[in-house]
Amino acid sequence: MSDIILTTFDWVPEMPRGYVRDLRVRWALEEAALPYRVESTPFRNRGSDHFAHQPFGQAPWLTDGDLSIFESGAILLHLGELSDKLMPVDRRGRSDAKEWLFAALASVEAASQPWSFFMFSGDTGETPMRKFFDDFLFQHRLKHMETVLEGSEWLVGTFSVADILMADVLRLVDRFDGLAKFPACRAYVARATARPAFVKAYDDQMAHFAAAD
Amino acid sequence: MSDIILTTFDWVPEMPRGYVRDLRVRWALEEAALPYRVESTPFRNRGSDHFAHQPFGQAPWLTDGDLSIFESGAILLHLGELSDKLMPVDRRGRSDAKEWLFAALASVEAASQPWSFFMFSGDTGETPMRKFFDDFLFQHRLKHMETVLEGSEWLVGTFSVADILMADVLRLVDRFDGLAKFPACRAYVARATARPAFVKAYDDQMAHFAAAD
Repeated sequence: MSDIILTTFDWVPEMPRGYVRDLRVRWALEEAALPYRVESTPFRNRGSDHFAHQPFGQAPWLTDGDLSIFESGAILLHLGELSDKLMPVDRRGRSDAKEWLFAALASVEAASQPWSFFMFSGDTGETPMRKFFDDFLFQHRLKHMETVLEGSEWLVGTFSVADILMADVLRLVDRFDGLAKFPACRAYVARATARPAFVKAYDDQMAHFAAAD
Repeated sequence: MSDIILTTFDWVPEMPRGYVRDLRVRWALEEAALPYRVESTPFRNRGSDHFAHQPFGQAPWLTDGDLSIFESGAILLHLGELSDKLMPVDRRGRSDAKEWLFAALASVEAASQPWSFFMFSGDTGETPMRKFFDDFLFQHRLKHMETVLEGSEWLVGTFSVADILMADVLRLVDRFDGLAKFPACRAYVARATARPAFVKAYDDQMAHFAAAD
């Protein structure tokens, strides 16, 4: 009987399917072959129990025994500490993996998320703010990620939770064709998403939401 | 002789002074009374040594013996693990502190940063995207942070690195008067920034940049 329970929404609209953040957690659990089960919380009526686990009313959260953890980055850090398939064993490698977990969120996703909101909105690219957020993502972040990934198969030598997070962040940029000028980033996403654990996590998420239609 | 070295820019323009992210790190080091020294890297000409430590050409980074760490969240996690003045000692408290480190960045700052770019830009608030980012910050994030902070002096029971990060994120929102409708958030920022370690960190940052003028 597994102690690890991943809770995600019972249903989401078509658009975000395949991109809901429980995918990052499923992926890590599959890579590490950790036993877990998935539970659902209502998407439409988010109650006090939901907010007790996730104060912003988002998903997912993870429970592991007496711990309840929200934030995909924090969950991946927790899982990384449970399995050497998810983090290097040496002190320096572990430090690097944690650093890149934060960088995937605070440096890259912080720039890709507002850009993706503009893409969703249908902004034609003519406004100064759209230009600003394009530069923020492409010039200040992806240009440098391209340099990092030109020289590395994975961020910290071996595959780690940092790659799960970074590849998932870049995957959403790729969805809107934002990696066209960044071939090393695009190859990295392709390499990461070809892993059987990603394919299983993706298929499981799609099946989970389809079952509620 | 200290092994901990904090590297930040030698100089920055007036506008960001008092808000450069080395402040978070100085604050934590002062809270924990860990010995450290500060070194400078050129703001105007960022060389290969800079990118070797911080691949996006930003600041700060921290070195501690053989480790070099960038990302303020990763640095605070590292310092939190060095001192029980910065993280609870129990397993659950430590898990909560790590979760809120990620939440400060990926849930709150990810929403406050694009909003603050709009504020800097002088957008009058009439565009749909400005409205979208207002809602993202106020309705989807600060409304919930207000509930969290109405019931808590600090995020995880005792003061921790999570408060350093969250208070610093909210402090920049307050600078643009974004906390006017969130009195618990505003009181939390006031409580955090009244701590002697914050005052010392702030004064030291201001003096550091002023010395280069």
